Amino acid sequence: MQIINEPQNALSQATQGIQWAYPNLTWVPNTFGCYDSNFQDDQIPLIAGGGSGHDPAHWGYVGHGMLTAAIMGTVFQPPTSQEIVKVTKQVTRQRRVFFIVKNFPADVSAFTAAQQQLQKEHWQTGLCIVADDISVDHESLKLLRRGVAGTILVHKILGAAAAQGASIAELTHIAAALVPNIHTIGVAASGARIPGQSTASFNLNPSEIYYGIGIHGEPGYRREPFQSSERLAQELISKLRLNFKWHAGDHYAVFVNSLGGTTPMELMVFNNDVHELLTLAALTIDFNKVGTFLTANGMHGLSLTLLSLADPDWLTALNRPVKTAAWPN
Amino acid sequence: MQIINEPQNALSQATQGIQWAYPNLTWVPNTFGCYDSNFQDDQIPLIAGGGSGHDPAHWGYVGHGMLTAAIMGTVFQPPTSQEIVKVTKQVTRQRRVFFIVKNFPADVSAFTAAQQQLQKEHWQTGLCIVADDISVDHESLKLLRRGVAGTILVHKILGAAAAQGASIAELTHIAAALVPNIHTIGVAASGARIPGQSTASFNLNPSEIYYGIGIHGEPGYRREPFQSSERLAQELISKLRLNFKWHAGDHYAVFVNSLGGTTPMELMVFNNDVHELLTLAALTIDFNKVGTFLTANGMHGLSLTLLSLADPDWLTALNRPVKTAAWPN
Repeated sequence: MQIINEPQNALSQATQGIQWAYPNLTWVPNTFGCYDSNFQDDQIPLIAGGGSGHDPAHWGYVGHGMLTAAIMGTVFQPPTSQEIVKVTKQVTRQRRVFFIVKNFPADVSAFTAAQQQLQKEHWQTGLCIVADDISVDHESLKLLRRGVAGTILVHKILGAAAAQGASIAELTHIAAALVPNIHTIGVAASGARIPGQSTASFNLNPSEIYYGIGIHGEPGYRREPFQSSERLAQELISKLRLNFKWHAGDHYAVFVNSLGGTTPMELMVFNNDVHELLTLAALTIDFNKVGTFLTANGMHGLSLTLLSLADPDWLTALNRPVKTAAWPN
Repeated sequence: MQIINEPQNALSQATQGIQWAYPNLTWVPNTFGCYDSNFQDDQIPLIAGGGSGHDPAHWGYVGHGMLTAAIMGTVFQPPTSQEIVKVTKQVTRQRRVFFIVKNFPADVSAFTAAQQQLQKEHWQTGLCIVADDISVDHESLKLLRRGVAGTILVHKILGAAAAQGASIAELTHIAAALVPNIHTIGVAASGARIPGQSTASFNLNPSEIYYGIGIHGEPGYRREPFQSSERLAQELISKLRLNFKWHAGDHYAVFVNSLGGTTPMELMVFNNDVHELLTLAALTIDFNKVGTFLTANGMHGLSLTLLSLADPDWLTALNRPVKTAAWPN
């Protein structure tokens, strides 16, 4: 059961509910896009988007120091390029914008089409594609790597730079260095619910977990009986280590994300297991956030994101306070 | 399935996980109590507590402008009076403290015993008991009214006053006026899970909801088949109206709380229904927060708290920024 009314109205009614709770967001009519009502149009607007159903992503990150606007589509579907152009034009009169896009074919297609349309109209534009999900880990499949929770760290670090006056070229430069240093992998203990659909995207036995699943309920790479939080941490960290090839003393940020249906106690037990294992590997953990950041609409499960803090400016940017609904200062 | 290790270690391991994520909290050895590491001992320390399993309550509200310390017991069990005294003495050298307690017999007993112990040692103490849950709504049963999500609003408003230098007498005065103006009622769509226990505190059919349940899985007052979010809002608001006896134009704060397993989309759909009904009643909603504030360890369900803003200072206090893990500024 889902606590909604008519399923076809869930998204628009939830959007109304958000408007009551966050009057500092201005919504653009006939879209699921919103922007920071206090935006002064004195910096490069930073805009992210994607499907709905990932709350608090992406509307929860709109506010000074992070995103200028968020443009959602329907549940698990990105906005159209027309919606992206429409919202972008409402946000700024300076004809310049930077988009942050998660690496799903439909998302990339919509945002690059919007970018091309704006360029035809003589806008300056920048765009970065986040592909942090290493569950598809064969080298030749790197292009298929999805954008998941690590995207929130990109919002945060680029958001700090944009608020301090970075140009589109500078944001592009930061993103190019940052994105390859972020890797994420998830694990599910249930499927993802979609409003109005009684069945989940995949089904697991009550004691089964599924490694490498995606945020829309895409299948993972292996199912096995659940043993312990520590076993999950071992598996996810071993996959991350293959990608990072870290050395003792390297500096990292640890980002533990609930996929929607995981309790704080579960998240914190897992966070402790992650820290114990990374401490054994002699890594230095300079930054740690644990919470519900980018979800698969209520899925029981979590993701672990590591960011190699190769540039100390990234840590400064992560620690800078922001005014948003969902980023905890 | 719960994503933990040995159930008997879940709480201590989760507490370790919190320590990694929130280094600004100092934990007192051999207790589940923590305090704001940045506390300057220049105000009345405000301390709340109760059982664990209600995350982010209460540790998530420790920080400047809200709680000075939080003292948890084991899952759904309050701390002992000895633990309360021990943590309190770590927090302050000024021999003065104010406790906020939820109205459960064991909680009240532990905190009043601690208060008496401290008074014997010549401390100045204050204590307020929050009893906002109106699900036990017969007049003669008012003493049994439990303390639930409305307690977080008490943390916030007393926290603002304490940070501005209020005395124990002033905090007592504010609490006495405030607490009777806060009422809450909850509804569950599942039982509450306890680490290591495979069965929930009560069981519901997949399409059934239960009005008036407590945050430890206490039984409610009526089960019925789930119809819609709007129907839930109607039922909860009709119970609240019986208690408030409001008039058109009255000013209210609306506080929608997930009991742990409810998605943001569900919460926001419900929030919209609440606003539509309160708008029909011609109330003025000056403040609205929606989120996961005081949970029943992963229960699917929610609670609705209304605060009659009889004193405009309360609204000012609610809006004052704080530095905590779980209160969204």
